[in-house]
Amino acid sequence: MSHAIPMVDVWRGPFLESTHVGHAVVCDASGHIVQAWGDADAVILPRSSTKMIQALPLVESGAADAFGLTDAQLALGCASHEGAPIHTDMVSKWLAELGLSDSDLRCGAEAPRDRKAKHAMIRAGGSPSQMHNNCSGKHSGFLTLTKHLGAGTEYVDPAHPVQLAVKDAFEDVTGMDSPGFGIDGCSAPNFGTTVHGLARAMAFFAAANEGAADGRERAAAKLTRAMATYPELVAGQGRACTELMNAMGGNVAVKTGAEAVFIAILPEQKLGVALKIVDGATRASECAIAAILVKLGVLEPKHPATLKRMNAPIKNWRGIETGIIRVADGFA
Amino acid sequence: MSHAIPMVDVWRGPFLESTHVGHAVVCDASGHIVQAWGDADAVILPRSSTKMIQALPLVESGAADAFGLTDAQLALGCASHEGAPIHTDMVSKWLAELGLSDSDLRCGAEAPRDRKAKHAMIRAGGSPSQMHNNCSGKHSGFLTLTKHLGAGTEYVDPAHPVQLAVKDAFEDVTGMDSPGFGIDGCSAPNFGTTVHGLARAMAFFAAANEGAADGRERAAAKLTRAMATYPELVAGQGRACTELMNAMGGNVAVKTGAEAVFIAILPEQKLGVALKIVDGATRASECAIAAILVKLGVLEPKHPATLKRMNAPIKNWRGIETGIIRVADGFA
Repeated sequence: MSHAIPMVDVWRGPFLESTHVGHAVVCDASGHIVQAWGDADAVILPRSSTKMIQALPLVESGAADAFGLTDAQLALGCASHEGAPIHTDMVSKWLAELGLSDSDLRCGAEAPRDRKAKHAMIRAGGSPSQMHNNCSGKHSGFLTLTKHLGAGTEYVDPAHPVQLAVKDAFEDVTGMDSPGFGIDGCSAPNFGTTVHGLARAMAFFAAANEGAADGRERAAAKLTRAMATYPELVAGQGRACTELMNAMGGNVAVKTGAEAVFIAILPEQKLGVALKIVDGATRASECAIAAILVKLGVLEPKHPATLKRMNAPIKNWRGIETGIIRVADGFA
Repeated sequence: MSHAIPMVDVWRGPFLESTHVGHAVVCDASGHIVQAWGDADAVILPRSSTKMIQALPLVESGAADAFGLTDAQLALGCASHEGAPIHTDMVSKWLAELGLSDSDLRCGAEAPRDRKAKHAMIRAGGSPSQMHNNCSGKHSGFLTLTKHLGAGTEYVDPAHPVQLAVKDAFEDVTGMDSPGFGIDGCSAPNFGTTVHGLARAMAFFAAANEGAADGRERAAAKLTRAMATYPELVAGQGRACTELMNAMGGNVAVKTGAEAVFIAILPEQKLGVALKIVDGATRASECAIAAILVKLGVLEPKHPATLKRMNAPIKNWRGIETGIIRVADGFA
């Protein structure tokens, strides 16, 4: 085991004010490590970075086709969205098509992260519903599979057929037994793996072919394309996932997870990337994933979406630039 | 130099999901280290944890007395407040007494952190003023000293007499030359020091006597008492500084700073404490300062304000307890 290495530095004037260490792995389709920083075998909870794995059974089972889900819906099924109208309207319609409603979700109510939607709600004296939860697309996917399987309503129970199918897919694509799970913010089980295991899973997605004989492989390819095609549905305006995917022109899928996990799926290169910042800071995971994507040649170093993460100016209340967030010396 | 040590762990189910390392020093009135963790000589920017030092010239110069400032105003002068009415009303009155207004502040406009005040502002279609800035009390103090000195309006300029006086006081109480400054969120210069230097300054405050011959010492004692007497003015409802000071019954002053700095002033024990979490996470600095205060015997381990920081349950959107933030093994 090796230690986490410095990945991201936060400067204020001449001072290195804070610093973030982490682990990262770039993996090829055979599961081999192309490059690693820190400890590839560090055990992590992938959190929302695993949503495209959690969506595999939905597609593989035939449920997505049976219910006529569009690619846009599949992208939303892999999303940590902002609860803007483009997200909640689609969830609302999706639930209605299933003959279900907000109360069938089990993700919990969360205020929209989209500023405009949030302020509109406050002005109207409203309160958030479960549809506003950033995971409501994933949960709509869980409900679709639940209905397809004729299973019970408590679909976030770790023993529910939907979660058993997720666990099976998760262990298959990560190439290892999961050491267990934690309960996520949205109440679904979140299976643990290593940074290497998560990168291996992403390499599986990267190398997957929509014309393959294997249903899991077809599902992985379809979900990757859906994410890369609809960046605004996977996160939202101004968010890292959306802006970075737009900057890469639909060629790469990326996804953040809480507590500073980030993954990337590079279909052209057939590479998967996974990283975890040890302290859980999102500002650092966004910077680090951008650095790796630049290094891999798929993200323009001078693109505004890149500069916003890799050389993010820190501005104060008067708009004065007081510091910068940037890649630590020696990393990527 | 020694490495930062693990101080705070974030668990989710059976997994150590994230971890925070830091430096901390407990110092006595002679400047000697009573106990240290990590690197006592690590250079840090103390950020808002230095506000009582920045207020020394205000009191020491006679400006506070000349303008009849109350202890409540002095507490607000050391505050990172929430922009609730109890804070902004006092700032508004203070500025009026100086014959000044919001536009004379140089801290910048910041939305109130107080949820009720923020929502009321959104509903009214209003926008934040500089008075809502968490530093507006400190800036009212700067303006009071500016007026007392008959100095120019740009009081956050590092060459302004107010900031020169702050630098002089800062280097005196930290017991060392400052290696320089960064510009803070509120546009004032923020002088660097070491963790030991900051703890030494806090020990000076802790040992200071209001009846002393030395004006700086009298000022330090007065400011400490003001902070400990008015916890709700120093931060606000539900905030760590306010709740921890209330829990310690006015016997100890504590103050947070951005990027995970925290200090404590223990007058009865004549001890000063300073800590910095290397990655800048506030959830960790709040946990670590509580652990040190418990260890020093001034904070009840079972007090709700303590448990909220040292064993903070992580609850998800449905209110399910999914994890806990707690002190790392081997620290404090």
